Amino acid sequence: MVNIKSSSNSIIKEIKSLYKKKNRWKKKQFIVEGINIVEECIDNDYPLMYIIYSDELLNVKGGQKLFDKINFHPRLIHVTDQLYREISQMENPQGIMGVSEFRVNTIDELNIYKHISLLLLDRLQDPGNMGTIIRSADAFGIDGIIITKGCVDVYNPKVIRSTMGSIFRVPIYHEDDPILAIRKLKTKGIKVYTTSLGGNIYTYEVNFKLPFLLVVGNESSGVSSSIYSVSDSLIKIPMIGDAESLNVAIASSIVMYESLRQRSQ
Amino acid sequence: MVNIKSSSNSIIKEIKSLYKKKNRWKKKQFIVEGINIVEECIDNDYPLMYIIYSDELLNVKGGQKLFDKINFHPRLIHVTDQLYREISQMENPQGIMGVSEFRVNTIDELNIYKHISLLLLDRLQDPGNMGTIIRSADAFGIDGIIITKGCVDVYNPKVIRSTMGSIFRVPIYHEDDPILAIRKLKTKGIKVYTTSLGGNIYTYEVNFKLPFLLVVGNESSGVSSSIYSVSDSLIKIPMIGDAESLNVAIASSIVMYESLRQRSQ
Repeated sequence: MVNIKSSSNSIIKEIKSLYKKKNRWKKKQFIVEGINIVEECIDNDYPLMYIIYSDELLNVKGGQKLFDKINFHPRLIHVTDQLYREISQMENPQGIMGVSEFRVNTIDELNIYKHISLLLLDRLQDPGNMGTIIRSADAFGIDGIIITKGCVDVYNPKVIRSTMGSIFRVPIYHEDDPILAIRKLKTKGIKVYTTSLGGNIYTYEVNFKLPFLLVVGNESSGVSSSIYSVSDSLIKIPMIGDAESLNVAIASSIVMYESLRQRSQ
Repeated sequence: MVNIKSSSNSIIKEIKSLYKKKNRWKKKQFIVEGINIVEECIDNDYPLMYIIYSDELLNVKGGQKLFDKINFHPRLIHVTDQLYREISQMENPQGIMGVSEFRVNTIDELNIYKHISLLLLDRLQDPGNMGTIIRSADAFGIDGIIITKGCVDVYNPKVIRSTMGSIFRVPIYHEDDPILAIRKLKTKGIKVYTTSLGGNIYTYEVNFKLPFLLVVGNESSGVSSSIYSVSDSLIKIPMIGDAESLNVAIASSIVMYESLRQRSQ
């Protein structure tokens, strides 16, 4: 175990640099912070380059249990509570974070099979929404999420925290151009269902027993209209009140639920 | 129109006092802030005691249009941008807020009919979750939301903002004791469906064509076990991944969607 007391230490500087997307993508590394998410990272055998903790960890519920798990990690770093708070982004720091690695998958690596279910995100902006969508995708057995240009970075620490660990379980694919991605998948026999407030078919009328790609879009403007024309169906969620729309994480989760309901019944 | 420049003005002090729950409930008044929510308040003919704006409003998208609507309001107050920022709780203040009134409804006032659908919240803590649930309840035509003791205050400004205006459309009922509320509703023939990770019946197996009350609970601990024994069914959402659970706003919205799906088909 290494002890670090100074914020000018090179490892501390390296960790801080990962709060910027540019640096995360240069190094293909990201920060996982908080008891729940570090534990999920370990339990899912995800690689951890470093684990950084402060004494605060032992005062937090579940902290001792997690400490026993990380105690013999070859790259365990102890910092003072003060230094920890300096590098933490949490409102109530729990004294535990790690640095993990990612690789960039493209959809060409996707293994298409009969029951595959995929999700494509178009210009999704809010980290909390993206994290919640990944969490729901995990629960509903989605086989992969395709993230296209203009989305918030999936390795943003807030996204990672909101996934509650699902980031370590749902395969993530990066494709800049959503149209190109959709065209590629269509040639492989995948049906493309795009959510739209003006959709012409209700979620429960869609056939989710076929291999499918579900497309969801930006918080205010929805899915880009250029995606409409390459979609097989524009689908909508039934609503009867005067609410103009649902939150995008809610809407996405509902369609994923509907797909699992059909496949379960 | 009144012009206020000083933060020691009595109206400004009164508005600031409404950030505390105790004062909101003493005066039965709450703050609505932001272009979207103030506009929804007006469009739904909800009473506004005061409207406070600063010049900033005219620089924000949609600000001029809203200003034209409020221009002749009898209790319009103009404040400086600086004073506005002092009383605002938004990260990017839009220069517009209002003070509205509420009344406390109890379930004894509920008109029970054949297709009624109700929601009961048990110790729900997060303002964003509560707001999102109210927004979804509006979309799925829920007839009323019963808020019990230990929930975040529904008139908390963050809850109000996250409802996106649905707070002005969905009837809210307050009952301290959830068990008492449930017993009362059961005598009126309402089925009580409680969400539980260990539920014994899937959402799609529940009969939502009957009048029903859906119970959802706390973010970490779920619904209180004392509510289980007075429920007709403990229901669960199908999941196949390793995610331990869904976000409570997601789970609630999915069950409300399922109820509307059954009633639509």
